[in-house]
Amino acid sequence: MKVYLDNAATTAMDDRVIEAMLPYMRNHYGNPSSVHSHGREVRTAIERARKKVAELLNASPSEICFTSGGTEADNMALLGSIEARGITHAITSPLEHHAVLHTLEICEQKGHIKLSILNVNEKGDLDLEQLEDLLRNNPNSLVSLMQANNEIGNINDIEKIGTLAKEYGAFFHSDTVQTMGHYTHDLSTLPIDALVAGGHKFHGPKGSGFLYLNKEKKIPPFIHGGAQERNMRGGTENVIGIVGIAKALEIAYEDMADHQKHIESLKTRFIEELKDGIPGVEFNGNSADLNKSLYTVLSVSLPPSETNRGMLLFNLDLEGISASGGSACSSGATVGSHVLRALHHSPERDAVRFSFSRFNTMDDVLYTTEKLKSLYAVEEV
Amino acid sequence: MKVYLDNAATTAMDDRVIEAMLPYMRNHYGNPSSVHSHGREVRTAIERARKKVAELLNASPSEICFTSGGTEADNMALLGSIEARGITHAITSPLEHHAVLHTLEICEQKGHIKLSILNVNEKGDLDLEQLEDLLRNNPNSLVSLMQANNEIGNINDIEKIGTLAKEYGAFFHSDTVQTMGHYTHDLSTLPIDALVAGGHKFHGPKGSGFLYLNKEKKIPPFIHGGAQERNMRGGTENVIGIVGIAKALEIAYEDMADHQKHIESLKTRFIEELKDGIPGVEFNGNSADLNKSLYTVLSVSLPPSETNRGMLLFNLDLEGISASGGSACSSGATVGSHVLRALHHSPERDAVRFSFSRFNTMDDVLYTTEKLKSLYAVEEV
Ligand SMILES: Cc1ncc(COP(=O)(O)O)c(C=O)c1O
Ligand SMILES: Cc1ncc(COP(=O)(O)O)c(C=O)c1O
Repeated sequence: MKVYLDNAATTAMDDRVIEAMLPYMRNHYGNPSSVHSHGREVRTAIERARKKVAELLNASPSEICFTSGGTEADNMALLGSIEARGITHAITSPLEHHAVLHTLEICEQKGHIKLSILNVNEKGDLDLEQLEDLLRNNPNSLVSLMQANNEIGNINDIEKIGTLAKEYGAFFHSDTVQTMGHYTHDLSTLPIDALVAGGHKFHGPKGSGFLYLNKEKKIPPFIHGGAQERNMRGGTENVIGIVGIAKALEIAYEDMADHQKHIESLKTRFIEELKDGIPGVEFNGNSADLNKSLYTVLSVSLPPSETNRGMLLFNLDLEGISASGGSACSSGATVGSHVLRALHHSPERDAVRFSFSRFNTMDDVLYTTEKLKSLYAVEEV
Repeated sequence: MKVYLDNAATTAMDDRVIEAMLPYMRNHYGNPSSVHSHGREVRTAIERARKKVAELLNASPSEICFTSGGTEADNMALLGSIEARGITHAITSPLEHHAVLHTLEICEQKGHIKLSILNVNEKGDLDLEQLEDLLRNNPNSLVSLMQANNEIGNINDIEKIGTLAKEYGAFFHSDTVQTMGHYTHDLSTLPIDALVAGGHKFHGPKGSGFLYLNKEKKIPPFIHGGAQERNMRGGTENVIGIVGIAKALEIAYEDMADHQKHIESLKTRFIEELKDGIPGVEFNGNSADLNKSLYTVLSVSLPPSETNRGMLLFNLDLEGISASGGSACSSGATVGSHVLRALHHSPERDAVRFSFSRFNTMDDVLYTTEKLKSLYAVEEV
């Protein structure tokens, strides 16, 4: 049996997304910047995709810029806002994805900004009082705080953070890569300047993404060249990626509540099975709290075990189970997770992230928890 | 009849490229950074693609970095080399693509470099003596000169330019977007530090590209995030784009000589028909000289005509013919071409670029030249 429980790393494409992309591989190949009929039909597809994404998010099409993924969109929002707004102070947290952390660290190293890293407790909750202090003392700050963490699933209240940021005149960017397509976003009311998406996290193509940038905020182009994406990103568009991400978001919005319900039942059962079957099992961050974490992510902390120490992912892989140690977005389990380090996760314990999608079944959960239990039963003999 | 003669803007995908991509849409969806089996099979596909590209170009796989297109690769090479090497002087030409020109202009505006723009004659030939003077007087320069121009087709001798650059210790980048897949490149002998490709110019997918960077040269990451592409470009890889561009290059190399012969015959006949049928027709740059221009590009300068003035592309489009006014890479015919301006092309004359691929037929040529002749015959009555 093959079980894929690494959906926070990436998801399988939905067949309907593939169907939507195929005509732009097989038949419509014009350059969207060309004014002739071959070009116009492709331009139309791109603008229709932009309109669809904007509609779903209650934004304006001019606020959506398609990118090559979530990472590029994060880079674009951060580097662009710092440059355009003459920002010299940024606030983030130690739990952000490297797309945010490394980008801001580079800016600090180059002397462009001073970087403040919020305190977090052992559950990964942010210190929002400290955030307010920092905002009060540093006018014209940039705040970059993710809506949900990819390793432990913790959800931050971006409405609250955004309201604070607004009150103190800060620019607020949120990495929403893990929530887009899994939760609704109403950008007509959410106090946010920039958010981002990666299509492959919700059954769209890898290498597709977008940046939402509030229309009152302007940033310089991230890639210099042609006038594509309203002068914000030069380069011939990844047409199939754009068509694909829009279709994936449309599908995600159609049945979101049902999918959430289905996946929540999987996560709940997974937790129960492990609690029952593995004495000493724990859950990282707020991962086991359905109200405070992504329904798609469960980060498990396993009791110290000789046979599994450092071998857990490998042992699962042997059983056909794909999961991840912390984040698989960069070099996966081979590099220690900065998130688990920030939470002071014990190096004696193995951590593994199981992440679910609507393509998973209860059988996947039962098979996996069974295998886990037997891996951790061995030593008790 | 529909005739597509805008292949320098973009090409139709080869069916074999689509076939190579499909399994990575339908079946293999793991994240290449994940260490489990779902991830490893996709990692393997990416590294196989990298090896294939490297083999074809006689480079090492570690010298190939996949990007979201030619524009990004140009940005990466230029911004990266300027930063890594502390370059304060760059040399380019007025005929470069905006991916190069705008990038260097921004660097100049920010005060990072002084920019020298080579003189060109009315044919678009570069002043290589001036290049040598500039290199002599400015140690540690960056030279960015394209191998072939996308609007007029002029080919520059990058072997000669690279040798000069090397002699004076300059970093040499060449925009090879229009030659990659149409000419062979042997990077074991070519004196070049960086070159670039966009997959959609040789029947691969849009939004795919790569940068070749000589292994002795190092540049910082262009996109900050995960450790993808050997730490040079963070972000989950566009797997289908990578598989597609490698397959497209492989196919291009298989039958290159035959395709060149076929397309040259189309271009030659096109020139003959126009010379015979339209008095006063001219050809821009070295476009009509098969030894000095891309076999894929023909830039035509038409005699002044009341009925066609500013309407030529539109009139062709009505006849089902897709062509381009100068470059379609940015906003196409709606913005004046900086290349034709640099050549002092008369604003009284309409210019149109016809660009060919191996998918074009002699019928395409005869149909198009017939229509052109009749558009320009009208006024003679
Ligand atoms: C010479 C040249 N350089 C760069 C580019 C940009 O490549 P891409 O469209 O893949 O970004 C193009 C065409 O678009 C081109 O013709
Ligand atoms: C929270 C978060 N931000 C950013 C990214 C990067 O997105 P992408 O892989 O599309 O570049 C990821 C995952 O890869 C993520 O989980």
